[in-house]
Amino acid sequence: MTREELVSEIKKKKSFLCIGLDTDITKIPQHLLKEEDPLFAFNKEIIDATHDLAVAYKPNTAFYEAHGVKGWISLEKTIRYINENYPEIFTIADAKRGDIGNTSKMYAKAFFEDLEFDSVTVAPYMGSDSVKPFLDFENKWVILLGLTSNEGAFDFQTIENKEGVSLSNTVIKKAAEWADENQLMYVVGATKAEYLAEIRKIIPNHFLLVPGVGAQGGKLSDVVQFGKNDDIGLLINSSRGIIYADNSTDFASVARSKALEIQQEMQDYIK
Amino acid sequence: MTREELVSEIKKKKSFLCIGLDTDITKIPQHLLKEEDPLFAFNKEIIDATHDLAVAYKPNTAFYEAHGVKGWISLEKTIRYINENYPEIFTIADAKRGDIGNTSKMYAKAFFEDLEFDSVTVAPYMGSDSVKPFLDFENKWVILLGLTSNEGAFDFQTIENKEGVSLSNTVIKKAAEWADENQLMYVVGATKAEYLAEIRKIIPNHFLLVPGVGAQGGKLSDVVQFGKNDDIGLLINSSRGIIYADNSTDFASVARSKALEIQQEMQDYIK
Repeated sequence: MTREELVSEIKKKKSFLCIGLDTDITKIPQHLLKEEDPLFAFNKEIIDATHDLAVAYKPNTAFYEAHGVKGWISLEKTIRYINENYPEIFTIADAKRGDIGNTSKMYAKAFFEDLEFDSVTVAPYMGSDSVKPFLDFENKWVILLGLTSNEGAFDFQTIENKEGVSLSNTVIKKAAEWADENQLMYVVGATKAEYLAEIRKIIPNHFLLVPGVGAQGGKLSDVVQFGKNDDIGLLINSSRGIIYADNSTDFASVARSKALEIQQEMQDYIK
Repeated sequence: MTREELVSEIKKKKSFLCIGLDTDITKIPQHLLKEEDPLFAFNKEIIDATHDLAVAYKPNTAFYEAHGVKGWISLEKTIRYINENYPEIFTIADAKRGDIGNTSKMYAKAFFEDLEFDSVTVAPYMGSDSVKPFLDFENKWVILLGLTSNEGAFDFQTIENKEGVSLSNTVIKKAAEWADENQLMYVVGATKAEYLAEIRKIIPNHFLLVPGVGAQGGKLSDVVQFGKNDDIGLLINSSRGIIYADNSTDFASVARSKALEIQQEMQDYIK
């Protein structure tokens, strides 16, 4: 998917909501456990109920890998279902991969060619040759970890170098030399919204994928205030707050109402 | 596997060789392509031919994920085959995972419970809560990226903070607060053997998993000189130099002879 297509979808749906499909077998409604593929059955209902309110879905690969081959089948069915039924949706494999060049190329094939995701999250620690192989695919995106939303972000990401520049800002700046805003986005946690203004000075045009709104404590209004750009430039992820809002047979319509609440807050920010 | 068991295997086999199963469908012998599961068929022959010369096998997950569900089946068959036939072997899922706490826990389940690997490589960028869930499993190991063997290592890992400490050394030191040498190892590239002496001052006792000997240019003698400790404390990985040494029907016995060359160099370093 191109940047223009994504921005156009955001304006059409008046939403920059990404729904995280962190589908945990211990948290989904009991009645789905008798399905042949409970993870996919859950995802399908969530997707059908929310696809007009969200511009992106983000399955986190860990939740599927935890079930081995069966989980990988659920992941494959989920991405195929989205691509076949809602091709306008931007899809994110939240995989946080990154390895030496020839190996990152294999991961890129896994997520872009085999599974046909639009984008994959990538970890920056191993540097340029671990990231660049993902950039060789047309209309596919790297979403690089910048400043994450978890507590551990303060262990290394906020360490300053001799010039007083934090590791996360060094990563963000360096990676912008590898790809422009048509191929590269960054993960920047909502729980650190005050850092967003500083990050926007480094990369005014790139999209940011923002986890941490809701369950992890970040506020949408803060993220918009500090992080929005002319093309919106934000994908706000919500997982638990939407997909696990209810665990009766009615879970999908409750998920829809939660997504709708967020979309309605978002539409005020989109002219 | 415990540290004592690993050290005992190293002494028994007079080897600290780890064989990387970076099994690439485009590089394995042609005659295997007619097998139902070429990746597994290749791995099985390599393992059968080298298990008495190596103390560890390290499949890199990227090479399996690139084939989707089929690849995940090959990975599963490979680890089950090792565990059933050669339970004395230390197994490493080279996956370089790392995510927020509840998600890292899912990855830990994937590799330790579902696939029953002894260890998994973990990326440090997201900090403590991304690493600690892997440490909650008894007799399982985290192998944390310290200083990697690739060119991109110089993008971020060698950046010094205000006190002149590199990011990789900060990571190594900090992680040693989370786990001792009975649960934690580090990846330190052989191509940077001169850094090993410095790293050994920080963590004299931990094992190091060392990629980059051979194909990537690192020398075994340098790694031993700067990295060996009283328990050896090293696992030297070789992938391409062994598994792709030949691609005729004889590939496994050529792989054995390459592994034997390395083992024979190693035995001189083990009293």
